[in-house]
Amino acid sequence: MAKNKIVVAYSGGLDTSVMVKWLKDNYDAEIITFTGNLGQTKELVGLEEKAKKSGASKSYVVDLTKEFIDDFVFPALKAGAMYEEAYPMACSIGRPLLAKTLVDIAKQEGANMVAHGCTGKGNDQVRFEVAVGALAPDIQTLAPLRSWEFKSREEEIEFAAKNNIPVSATKENPYSIDENIWGIAIECGVLEDPMVEPPADAFQITVSPEEAPDEPEYVIIEFEKGIPVALNGKEMDSVSLVKELNKIGGRNAIGRIDMIENRLVGIKSREVYEAPAGVILHTAHKELERITLEKSVAHYKTQVAQEYANLIYNGLWFSPLREALQAFVDKTQEKVTGMVKLKLYKGNLIVSGRTSPFSLYDPELATYTAADQFDHKASEGFIKIFGLPYKTINRVMQKAEAENLVQ
Amino acid sequence: MAKNKIVVAYSGGLDTSVMVKWLKDNYDAEIITFTGNLGQTKELVGLEEKAKKSGASKSYVVDLTKEFIDDFVFPALKAGAMYEEAYPMACSIGRPLLAKTLVDIAKQEGANMVAHGCTGKGNDQVRFEVAVGALAPDIQTLAPLRSWEFKSREEEIEFAAKNNIPVSATKENPYSIDENIWGIAIECGVLEDPMVEPPADAFQITVSPEEAPDEPEYVIIEFEKGIPVALNGKEMDSVSLVKELNKIGGRNAIGRIDMIENRLVGIKSREVYEAPAGVILHTAHKELERITLEKSVAHYKTQVAQEYANLIYNGLWFSPLREALQAFVDKTQEKVTGMVKLKLYKGNLIVSGRTSPFSLYDPELATYTAADQFDHKASEGFIKIFGLPYKTINRVMQKAEAENLVQ
Amino acid sequence: MAKNKIVVAYSGGLDTSVMVKWLKDNYDAEIITFTGNLGQTKELVGLEEKAKKSGASKSYVVDLTKEFIDDFVFPALKAGAMYEEAYPMACSIGRPLLAKTLVDIAKQEGANMVAHGCTGKGNDQVRFEVAVGALAPDIQTLAPLRSWEFKSREEEIEFAAKNNIPVSATKENPYSIDENIWGIAIECGVLEDPMVEPPADAFQITVSPEEAPDEPEYVIIEFEKGIPVALNGKEMDSVSLVKELNKIGGRNAIGRIDMIENRLVGIKSREVYEAPAGVILHTAHKELERITLEKSVAHYKTQVAQEYANLIYNGLWFSPLREALQAFVDKTQEKVTGMVKLKLYKGNLIVSGRTSPFSLYDPELATYTAADQFDHKASEGFIKIFGLPYKTINRVMQKAEAENLVQ
Amino acid sequence: MAKNKIVVAYSGGLDTSVMVKWLKDNYDAEIITFTGNLGQTKELVGLEEKAKKSGASKSYVVDLTKEFIDDFVFPALKAGAMYEEAYPMACSIGRPLLAKTLVDIAKQEGANMVAHGCTGKGNDQVRFEVAVGALAPDIQTLAPLRSWEFKSREEEIEFAAKNNIPVSATKENPYSIDENIWGIAIECGVLEDPMVEPPADAFQITVSPEEAPDEPEYVIIEFEKGIPVALNGKEMDSVSLVKELNKIGGRNAIGRIDMIENRLVGIKSREVYEAPAGVILHTAHKELERITLEKSVAHYKTQVAQEYANLIYNGLWFSPLREALQAFVDKTQEKVTGMVKLKLYKGNLIVSGRTSPFSLYDPELATYTAADQFDHKASEGFIKIFGLPYKTINRVMQKAEAENLVQ
Repeated sequence: MAKNKIVVAYSGGLDTSVMVKWLKDNYDAEIITFTGNLGQTKELVGLEEKAKKSGASKSYVVDLTKEFIDDFVFPALKAGAMYEEAYPMACSIGRPLLAKTLVDIAKQEGANMVAHGCTGKGNDQVRFEVAVGALAPDIQTLAPLRSWEFKSREEEIEFAAKNNIPVSATKENPYSIDENIWGIAIECGVLEDPMVEPPADAFQITVSPEEAPDEPEYVIIEFEKGIPVALNGKEMDSVSLVKELNKIGGRNAIGRIDMIENRLVGIKSREVYEAPAGVILHTAHKELERITLEKSVAHYKTQVAQEYANLIYNGLWFSPLREALQAFVDKTQEKVTGMVKLKLYKGNLIVSGRTSPFSLYDPELATYTAADQFDHKASEGFIKIFGLPYKTINRVMQKAEAENLVQ
Repeated sequence: MAKNKIVVAYSGGLDTSVMVKWLKDNYDAEIITFTGNLGQTKELVGLEEKAKKSGASKSYVVDLTKEFIDDFVFPALKAGAMYEEAYPMACSIGRPLLAKTLVDIAKQEGANMVAHGCTGKGNDQVRFEVAVGALAPDIQTLAPLRSWEFKSREEEIEFAAKNNIPVSATKENPYSIDENIWGIAIECGVLEDPMVEPPADAFQITVSPEEAPDEPEYVIIEFEKGIPVALNGKEMDSVSLVKELNKIGGRNAIGRIDMIENRLVGIKSREVYEAPAGVILHTAHKELERITLEKSVAHYKTQVAQEYANLIYNGLWFSPLREALQAFVDKTQEKVTGMVKLKLYKGNLIVSGRTSPFSLYDPELATYTAADQFDHKASEGFIKIFGLPYKTINRVMQKAEAENLVQ
Repeated sequence: MAKNKIVVAYSGGLDTSVMVKWLKDNYDAEIITFTGNLGQTKELVGLEEKAKKSGASKSYVVDLTKEFIDDFVFPALKAGAMYEEAYPMACSIGRPLLAKTLVDIAKQEGANMVAHGCTGKGNDQVRFEVAVGALAPDIQTLAPLRSWEFKSREEEIEFAAKNNIPVSATKENPYSIDENIWGIAIECGVLEDPMVEPPADAFQITVSPEEAPDEPEYVIIEFEKGIPVALNGKEMDSVSLVKELNKIGGRNAIGRIDMIENRLVGIKSREVYEAPAGVILHTAHKELERITLEKSVAHYKTQVAQEYANLIYNGLWFSPLREALQAFVDKTQEKVTGMVKLKLYKGNLIVSGRTSPFSLYDPELATYTAADQFDHKASEGFIKIFGLPYKTINRVMQKAEAENLVQ
Repeated sequence: MAKNKIVVAYSGGLDTSVMVKWLKDNYDAEIITFTGNLGQTKELVGLEEKAKKSGASKSYVVDLTKEFIDDFVFPALKAGAMYEEAYPMACSIGRPLLAKTLVDIAKQEGANMVAHGCTGKGNDQVRFEVAVGALAPDIQTLAPLRSWEFKSREEEIEFAAKNNIPVSATKENPYSIDENIWGIAIECGVLEDPMVEPPADAFQITVSPEEAPDEPEYVIIEFEKGIPVALNGKEMDSVSLVKELNKIGGRNAIGRIDMIENRLVGIKSREVYEAPAGVILHTAHKELERITLEKSVAHYKTQVAQEYANLIYNGLWFSPLREALQAFVDKTQEKVTGMVKLKLYKGNLIVSGRTSPFSLYDPELATYTAADQFDHKASEGFIKIFGLPYKTINRVMQKAEAENLVQ
């Protein structure tokens, strides 16, 4: 009997295929693979067979798409979580769910170890390992890519050949691509030069503004308590709604993000993302909040959103701070119910209408017409008191200057 | 001799023209008018004469454009100040300078009062009065529009006719428009309905995405310590640079903002803005910061930006907190020097390159090629310590559960 | 029949006694009085009769002590709400409950107005009126002290005499005192000079350190989910527990606070407080959090506490932001269960022990003995990555200096 | 010639004495020792000789006390930096200066490495290494205690004996003590049990409240721009002032701190501190700020103080964020000039007076006497506008409820 039992987060690509065999040998281990479907466009076929040919004794392929959207993506949407004010995050939100499922399988199978195929300088290794540690501190996480002997893709291919590990014949993509239903991350190659525009072939699901149709497309999204529930007047389940928005956004050139971001591990990296549904839903949700949240809630929530986004980005989904911030966020969403209308046109995403039964925009207070209900004379007293501290400062300084106390 | 001497912030429009005469009579006052030029497109001709015909004894028209950009707009640009994450503010930044000049003239003329033509429910009354109070607490500020007897535009026109006050014959604009070189605010009329898209005639200096040219236009902006100093390779003075960017942005449909915002006086209002140069410069500046600011500075500055924006929006330019935050901001800008290249196309504003001698983006740390300088093995120790608190929590909870301490 | 029906927040003192009659006459109103008992030491006897002699048709005296502690004081304790880092607030927390009860009675009695006896420059007027507005925007709040004709206490006494309003013969206290079970606020008189120490006669329920016993007294407080539930090993209801701690603290010179604070209405004021139970419970609660809250939760909660305290101080208990922050706070308290031991000695409040089944203090991680479980070598990797950004800055600057790019 | 040249941060204790020899052998290195005097009470005599006997070729003992107070301690005092709201930090502030001097000597001596004697689970290793990295990224930092072969104190003693390294014969202190002029940290032994009160012998420079004199002692401290400049009416240099306050505070039982704190490396630890001067000066400085800082500055600065304290605690003195926050802090201190009077009595530190030429406490605004200058009627307008959002919420919700929109 093998000494160890390892559940491997398995994609079927070169790294994780080689890893199955390498771990089996180096750890005297029985290997079980786990592949999570987070709604990526790439089909997950033949993975069980491939895993077994690589040396696995058992293989799980699990569709997590609905759980991903409902329990991870939408809570983060409600929070307005955008990393560094730009990126609605996709991998960052997916990793904790993959880690959780990995742990569940490990417990069920009685495995003492799990393994992932992340490199030693990205964020994903942290997200995996911190999540596993938080959920099952006694299970050891292995990260062979940080320590194994292979120095290049070629060496891995050679090892695969020698060990009869099936490896796709397709030539290497010039980019490193990570994908789920909520977004696609594109790295490497010419993108490492921040003076180079992303070439057209880097993008997977969006056209460029130039390629988009000449006619605008309108979209109407309805929310209930911060959650999108209907598209263009039709109620939809969460997964279908996101998929549909990816299509609509993609064909109208919505959702490309190109940024230099700060990784958790102390370096800046250049990242290109596509997230049509993410960008549309965050825009619509924010707009609905503009009419339904009281000012001080809206302002405070902006700060919470930053912290919340950092937590997710840093792999701390399963942390007490994220949970406490979620309680704050969920409370603020009770009245974030209503409808937002958006115009999509060649890369432009323009809010063209918003309404809510709980709208705090009161035309009779805001209007400059005769219907005005606002008490203009109250302003005098308001300003007197609001400005009092600054008058006091001036008076104190005048007095101090008169007494030659200011240098 | 008149009992009072009042310096009036004067635009030459109906309200302030009527105000000159009204104040003269009601306060037994000598009236001096002051009109500040903040680079608005509307020409300021014939104002002296008009003011005198309305009853003023003296009239100042002062060009403040350069001071406005250099001492107010660019400091706020360095701060990244966007009100409610969307609006680079224009009036809010102009009012304190107008108030300051008003106070300077009042002191020079020995006036005991100043007056403005703001209504009782906007933000501008607060900005004017708080600034005057902070700079000259002993000068009284009058706001006739909050208290006078006229209930409609027609009554004012009647008063003007009776008193030989020259009033433009032009029919009333369906919108209320406030303008300076940094932005234009458009309110009222159909815009009060948040389900209505702004009609084409609401916009003054920008075309719609549909109307913009079919060819993209590239723009290169250079910054020194956070301040834009050159455009497309040519050094330019600040005023010319902003004017030129307004033109470039305007013809490419950049800079339209349509939002429901939270006023200081407790209500939500619908505002439409045009700020082509503002939007382009904030975008470029932010991008340059992405490569030159260390992560924790960038993250902290995002919070400072929000507070700073609130202070400006709320009329607290001349406040010790704004000044202390400015010291923080200015310190962060010491290395925000470099160049950003932008592509403008039918309403899209796409960063297509950024570079700086102080760029902290280090390709040799970020790369996934053989040039990689990052120590991948350090990550293991990092993650162990970074994730330790969450492992500890799990262990403590396991133990507590084992002892039946958790309900 | 009277034109109006007014419910008056009534204390039985000079101001509110005069107010009953004054409102009855000036508003052609039926007057109903309401007196809320928040556990103050002063007995509320004879108030009904006194109110009627002053002109009221009906009189409510309601014991709100338990509701006050359970629904207002302890939620704020869980939040760690200390105004300006010093004051556990008492009046500020009591006003919203008084306002709520006032509104409840007004609705029940069909009154169209409520009235309070706060002056025009304190915080309490704001707390009352904002709370009433938030709970019943259609009920008008009157504040006679801001507008009536009496210019001094003497004029009020004269009015009372003329109208047969019963007024206590006791001579005026040199201080203005406001009191409830959670704290006492002492203002006015010599206290207005910030260079004067509060005289001994200013204090109502605490001795000075010099007067306290020479022997220390130990106190053990147990908390469940952030709520104090037992004292010295004995389970106690919330009201008894607070009362007992006021006694114990008071006799050991605990709970005096002397501060210059920033009022909401733009001025600084000198305030002296006594809050023995408040100070003891906040100290114990904070200490328990030190062992049960994960670091990032503890650090974030410190900021939340400041905002929460400001909201309460500013009268915004009934606001969506306070409610959303409460959801955050309550989530953090789930494991704040355990015991804190305190030593009280002549004004010193010294934590002398803390323990919890959920304590995250792990002696086997913290120890420097042979039992040490911490992986010391992980630190090397941690520091390498933690310090990487600062190394990078230095390297970039060195390079820039070498190229003469730094001025 | 030796292969390497290492400057060792040297205390003369067992660890660093052994380290000198161990590094010399293991790194084929010339060893130079550096000992920084930060005003600790322990005398630094005979260190040069001792270092040479241990194997060093050269030995620096540098008095850094004045630089420590002026350039590190007082800037942090101005910031109000208290770690976790309790601890004015001492080691944390000293390490960056020691690291800086270490680097200066290394550069001067042409050394390629530096070394310190910190263990692998404290904060100090991080502070040392991050500071060295920030100042001289090309110098390697060694931390032998993390990696060498000795498993106990006894093994080190044996190694010392074998190598003729002079080691003090004194028996080991039951506590681990780290000391400088600004504070003393006491760890280990029985203190590792959070239910145990620190024994009397743990404390070095303070008496207990019980042992303190029966008579109170008054102290008057004057500040200029946030910096203490005079004590009891006498101008003093910074070092003397701090030393004197340590004496005064120590004899009156001021400055003991006992806390469970969150270390940077992911664990909680129990720490006992003594910092009489630190506690007195922070208390006095805060009090002076209460009268000289405008409210919004004071409130914002509280948040900045927390971040600033975290940066110092985490070893990030030499970081751009600390520098930018310092710019904020320094700007706020321009008017923090004045005097604070404190009463010290058996562990109590009571502010008994405060005054400043720039005091914003205005008795004529604050008073309730006839001298009152506050406009009470302005409050009505203020409250109307301040409370408007909450009235609006209620009205919107009433309307929605009437329309059955609320579930």
